[in-house]
Amino acid sequence: MKSPLASLLWRSLRAYQVFGANTDVGKTVFTTLLGRTARKLWSDERVAFLKPVSTGPASEADDRHIHRFAAGVSHKTLFQYDIPVSPHAAAQASGRPIPSDDALLAECRDFAAACAAQGKGWLFLETAGGVHSPSPSGTTQADLYVPLRAPTVLIGDSRLGGISQTISAFESLRLRGYDVESVLVFRDATYQNLVYLADYFRKHHGVPVTSIAEPPERSENAERDADAMAEYYGRGDCEEATGRVLEHLDRRHGERIASLESLAAKAHRHIWYPFTQQGLLGPEDIMTIDSAHGDYFQTLAPAAPNAARDEPLLRSSFDGSASWWTQGLGHSNPQLTLAAAYAAGRYGHVMFAGTVHEPAMALAETLLRGMRNPRLSRVFYSDNGSTGIEVAVKMGLRAARLRYGWGTAEELGVLGLKGGYHGDTMGAMDCAEPCAYNAKIEWYEGKGYWLDYPTVLCSDGKWSVTSNEGLAEDLGRGTGYASLHDIFDVEAREHRGEHRRYEAYITATLTRLQQQGRKFGALILEPIVLGAGGMELVDPLFQRTLVNVVRQSPQLFSARGSAPRDPKDWSGLPVVFDEVFTGLYRLGRFTPSSFLGVHPDISVHAKLLTGGLVPLCTTLASERIFDVFSSSDKTDALLHGHSYTAHPVGCQVALESVREMQAMERRGDWAWARAQGWTDPVGQGRDVWSSWPRRFVEELSQQTGRVTGAWALGSVLAIHLKDAAGAGYSSNAAMGLREALSRGREAGTGGPWNVHARVLGNVLYVMASQTTSETSIRQITGLLRESLAS
Amino acid sequence: MKSPLASLLWRSLRAYQVFGANTDVGKTVFTTLLGRTARKLWSDERVAFLKPVSTGPASEADDRHIHRFAAGVSHKTLFQYDIPVSPHAAAQASGRPIPSDDALLAECRDFAAACAAQGKGWLFLETAGGVHSPSPSGTTQADLYVPLRAPTVLIGDSRLGGISQTISAFESLRLRGYDVESVLVFRDATYQNLVYLADYFRKHHGVPVTSIAEPPERSENAERDADAMAEYYGRGDCEEATGRVLEHLDRRHGERIASLESLAAKAHRHIWYPFTQQGLLGPEDIMTIDSAHGDYFQTLAPAAPNAARDEPLLRSSFDGSASWWTQGLGHSNPQLTLAAAYAAGRYGHVMFAGTVHEPAMALAETLLRGMRNPRLSRVFYSDNGSTGIEVAVKMGLRAARLRYGWGTAEELGVLGLKGGYHGDTMGAMDCAEPCAYNAKIEWYEGKGYWLDYPTVLCSDGKWSVTSNEGLAEDLGRGTGYASLHDIFDVEAREHRGEHRRYEAYITATLTRLQQQGRKFGALILEPIVLGAGGMELVDPLFQRTLVNVVRQSPQLFSARGSAPRDPKDWSGLPVVFDEVFTGLYRLGRFTPSSFLGVHPDISVHAKLLTGGLVPLCTTLASERIFDVFSSSDKTDALLHGHSYTAHPVGCQVALESVREMQAMERRGDWAWARAQGWTDPVGQGRDVWSSWPRRFVEELSQQTGRVTGAWALGSVLAIHLKDAAGAGYSSNAAMGLREALSRGREAGTGGPWNVHARVLGNVLYVMASQTTSETSIRQITGLLRESLAS
Repeated sequence: MKSPLASLLWRSLRAYQVFGANTDVGKTVFTTLLGRTARKLWSDERVAFLKPVSTGPASEADDRHIHRFAAGVSHKTLFQYDIPVSPHAAAQASGRPIPSDDALLAECRDFAAACAAQGKGWLFLETAGGVHSPSPSGTTQADLYVPLRAPTVLIGDSRLGGISQTISAFESLRLRGYDVESVLVFRDATYQNLVYLADYFRKHHGVPVTSIAEPPERSENAERDADAMAEYYGRGDCEEATGRVLEHLDRRHGERIASLESLAAKAHRHIWYPFTQQGLLGPEDIMTIDSAHGDYFQTLAPAAPNAARDEPLLRSSFDGSASWWTQGLGHSNPQLTLAAAYAAGRYGHVMFAGTVHEPAMALAETLLRGMRNPRLSRVFYSDNGSTGIEVAVKMGLRAARLRYGWGTAEELGVLGLKGGYHGDTMGAMDCAEPCAYNAKIEWYEGKGYWLDYPTVLCSDGKWSVTSNEGLAEDLGRGTGYASLHDIFDVEAREHRGEHRRYEAYITATLTRLQQQGRKFGALILEPIVLGAGGMELVDPLFQRTLVNVVRQSPQLFSARGSAPRDPKDWSGLPVVFDEVFTGLYRLGRFTPSSFLGVHPDISVHAKLLTGGLVPLCTTLASERIFDVFSSSDKTDALLHGHSYTAHPVGCQVALESVREMQAMERRGDWAWARAQGWTDPVGQGRDVWSSWPRRFVEELSQQTGRVTGAWALGSVLAIHLKDAAGAGYSSNAAMGLREALSRGREAGTGGPWNVHARVLGNVLYVMASQTTSETSIRQITGLLRESLAS
Repeated sequence: MKSPLASLLWRSLRAYQVFGANTDVGKTVFTTLLGRTARKLWSDERVAFLKPVSTGPASEADDRHIHRFAAGVSHKTLFQYDIPVSPHAAAQASGRPIPSDDALLAECRDFAAACAAQGKGWLFLETAGGVHSPSPSGTTQADLYVPLRAPTVLIGDSRLGGISQTISAFESLRLRGYDVESVLVFRDATYQNLVYLADYFRKHHGVPVTSIAEPPERSENAERDADAMAEYYGRGDCEEATGRVLEHLDRRHGERIASLESLAAKAHRHIWYPFTQQGLLGPEDIMTIDSAHGDYFQTLAPAAPNAARDEPLLRSSFDGSASWWTQGLGHSNPQLTLAAAYAAGRYGHVMFAGTVHEPAMALAETLLRGMRNPRLSRVFYSDNGSTGIEVAVKMGLRAARLRYGWGTAEELGVLGLKGGYHGDTMGAMDCAEPCAYNAKIEWYEGKGYWLDYPTVLCSDGKWSVTSNEGLAEDLGRGTGYASLHDIFDVEAREHRGEHRRYEAYITATLTRLQQQGRKFGALILEPIVLGAGGMELVDPLFQRTLVNVVRQSPQLFSARGSAPRDPKDWSGLPVVFDEVFTGLYRLGRFTPSSFLGVHPDISVHAKLLTGGLVPLCTTLASERIFDVFSSSDKTDALLHGHSYTAHPVGCQVALESVREMQAMERRGDWAWARAQGWTDPVGQGRDVWSSWPRRFVEELSQQTGRVTGAWALGSVLAIHLKDAAGAGYSSNAAMGLREALSRGREAGTGGPWNVHARVLGNVLYVMASQTTSETSIRQITGLLRESLAS
């Protein structure tokens, strides 16, 4: 999906998709039965068939067949190809333009919307061939129709081998999130697949299997065949069985809507939300997510007051926070699903203390190679960014304490940046300076010192590095640059001596802290962007200089401090990069450390690591840090671990995800994004780009009435809004813009869509995935422009 | 799998399994080609076909076919049924005893072992029909053959609809952890499935697709057919293509072994293990896990020195720590896999701040209902036990602080039990008293007071409650009981006044602490068993009394303390049950609080929650606790959250897992375990039982030379060994017994197997899953008996 598409859900319309376990299993007979019985039982309603793609001259016969045997049922074929082969081959052979998946789905939705507009009724979408038969574009139908999320009737195979075909087809649908509501199969006296299938689907999936008598065999005489079919369709047992199926489908349709509509109220009563003031959250504020595909959630639309028509119940919502910064390769990506399923099927979880399995090892090697950091050689697995940071801190503090000869009772802190944030477990919280996130938390005790830093912003169309008032005395108020690239060209800037002021400021600060007797065990930085701290883009030269000063000045941390002999050893302090948010292509590169040109001793990776599927975290460390914990005494070990450490599902998914992003980089999949004004002559590997067009960011920043500035890098767009009440987490700034995005677009092909964006204080950000299309970006920038201008 | 079975892997033998995408896709022709070409290219080796199950009289013809066209290839059918229908139907119709899955697989392995013993060669296991065609027992073949873990050749379907059949069949195999190494398909000029499939499998799965010319059509003349087939098999292009496939399979066999054999060394270089002193860990100590099924890992067997024969490379290892206490429903359980895949396909991950999705809500409701705790009404999701405890502590401390009017600077502790352990993040660590786990950790600072407690053990055949020396003064040295059930009958014991001494001791302790000015914000307990603290079974009456005293004595915690009006409100201190280890049927019941007959205000659940697949944790809380955080000020909220909060994959898997365990309870699946001497007349719901036989536990405890005692409850068996050096985490006691279990059994049907058990100080425990079979338990108790006696 390159553009939004609302799933098919109206109160009035039971829209079901009919898939076949194989070709030639009787789909047409079953849909004819469903259609004519629906007409009979719901005689005042409309019943429609939609055949999105049909191949072979049989289609005309189908039309006639339905016309004859299911009178009053309307029937439409969107794309008809005469050659009786798979749709992709037929489409190629036809010489006609091949419809894109988006176009085909939009036509399906339009048809369904038209049906819904006509009042109560039924719609059956009949697919072609088997579940994975390729559609005209080549995408298999099981993949193609996912965004419609129509519940499914699976026509089983009653022939020899049909048990296997039916179960496999079901599994292919299931692992794409389809709800198969009913399995239909002919009764065959010889193979009796029905008996097995009914038991299997009841036991394993709670899905009812209904059998129908076999239709009469075809003869050579068309007229006689027609009479026989008429008799067959008229049989009481056929109608009775089909009627039961339809009643089940009717009930399930109601249950689906009732369930969706009840979720917000239930959640309001029973869910305790993370990071949410529930005193301010009514049931109407809770967004119900029916499913998600690509970059879009399918969300329950707010009930329209006095709606004249039967409004669509679902709309597509662009996942503008990349689901809390996790989403890389699109929701419901079948490659990730299959990776997860493969590892689940091969291992489940296997404990990871002194054991090893292929996915954990392969992922460890892939990450170590990808980092291109000669210091890193060890991988420690944990469950999320917070735990990974706790691990990193345990590593760093121990290394510093032992080298500098401090006792366990010594009060050690971390050195960081103001507004840095590393997670919500107590140890991770203690790495952040006091702020609204942690002020009221009983055991919180910030341990460390946090430096102020200059930031990067595009304001009124111009890119610059600025310092706030406190810093300006030491660093000057700000400097303008021709482009973001120029700001990121840290070597050129260093060559020009721009880092000198930073060096002096940092050295003076560290000297003062030393004089105060403060002791530090690690330098912890989020490279380039402080995420939770307010989407601040930090001057990369400042972070680079900070690391360099710390490394070049071991004597500032301990009288024992001296430069280590091994160039891969840590110096001054162990340097920890918290790449949980900024790592793994968020900012366009494998690691944000490449922007800084310095290598950490420890780095932490999560979120995008698994492409947005399951929690997993890795803390990478240098061999010198690892050695500190190695002895013959068990209690010297790094005594940290979680039961699901290196769970194979997470490792396999991460492996798939990281490799896919690496392949995207190699293939140049982001060329369109680079070409949006970002490309600089220095070329790939050193360039600075975003999925958001440069011109658009500069334009936004010129809305000086409402905006203080904006920036974009990688998949992130941050808009800093003017807020009379002042910035900070508790601020309600940017909510107006957020609401405009949330209203979105009501009409248009593909149905209603909006943007679900998150706000951090006075900053509204929109975060794309690594697979967001140019089309989506263009639609969202359009909406943003309008919302800001209004 | 009810008993161990080693997977098929020998250096000498390339054993491949041949699955068909459907029935009648040409499996016999392809295997004949593979066989004859293997004979030709590896002329000094043996080539064998094994057909585990064959239906239809065609099999004789198959034998003749192979004899004629693949001369020199040996051929065996294990189970032959004459009726040409699915094996399960044929087996039923035959009237002969139906082989069990275990028996059938053991025969397959025996045959493969015999092949391997004869030197280098090839073995092709040919399945019947399609991938999901049911085997004689009714288990589909795709499920049945998983434990053999033979890499797979998939014969694709070249007919109309065959693209769909081939992809679906592949997916059914893949989600069971099969490695499909090659797809073979006939070239069909009309449908050209080959072209699509080759591209699809290369792009999505990196699997080569090879085409072979179609065999001649059959005529009515058998002699002419035979000649035509002879000519076909002799065709250079057929042989050449098959040769390429075989060379690929030969290479992949070598690569698989090389990869497995390299893992331990790589891990030794690059993995940083949780909770492991790597200075004591050589590459030879690292266990390589190839896969896992049911209760058994497949582990790389240590290289036998001077092995005369080609030893099997894999053995099955009973997962005796239930993979760090996570495993409930068996490794590679297809129901859990499909649940994970469904949620991945429907949602991927969707952010959970003010949103709701069905699996999160359904799981929340299922847990709240299952707990039968009228206090609990809220569910907070996080990623693992550690984070869930941090959440619980944040909840408890805030509630107590606000009710008792303490400031944020107040030093608050938790009340707990000595040896209690709640996880490795800093906040969770701070809930545990100083011990070897945390003593050297820089930021650790135990915050609280931890009471000593009486324990339950069976010693020298007798069950008793004992107190250590420190406690004995207050509580007496110990009391004997007729059975574990009598100890757990807390109401009868209370009726007899046994809790009085506990009450007095606890009240005195709390009074003393109050006099010292200590302040507490929560009582945190692991109900019934202290896991990480040394597998100690706590006297349930003591824990019950502790909760009751805390609740009845609010004045002991604050001068403001008084009993709340609402009986569902917390009193004294918020009571937190850490049920991460003991909850969700580990001890035979949904919640261990039912043993105590008291309800917590907050409870934490993880590990078994997802049945052993992916990390997930829930912290359940009462409405009164929730209300404390509700206001119109954002910073009053519980500011905790993780990106993957309530990830749909975890919620869906947990839902499946919890519901399945509830169904097992309802169905009485554990009747066999209860009947092992545990059943007491009070009946279900109140009974106390274990998967480990009571007689066996009592017998073990009589090995007074080596054992101080033992206990079993639910799936846990703990053996407390005598250790001259004293107990404690750092102790090396029990290692001898662990090594004996690790040696296991060398021979026997099903191949070599052993038990991978974990040791905590002087305690060796073996933990079954909730699906472990009576057979496995019997085998392991046999091995334990021998090991202890030797």
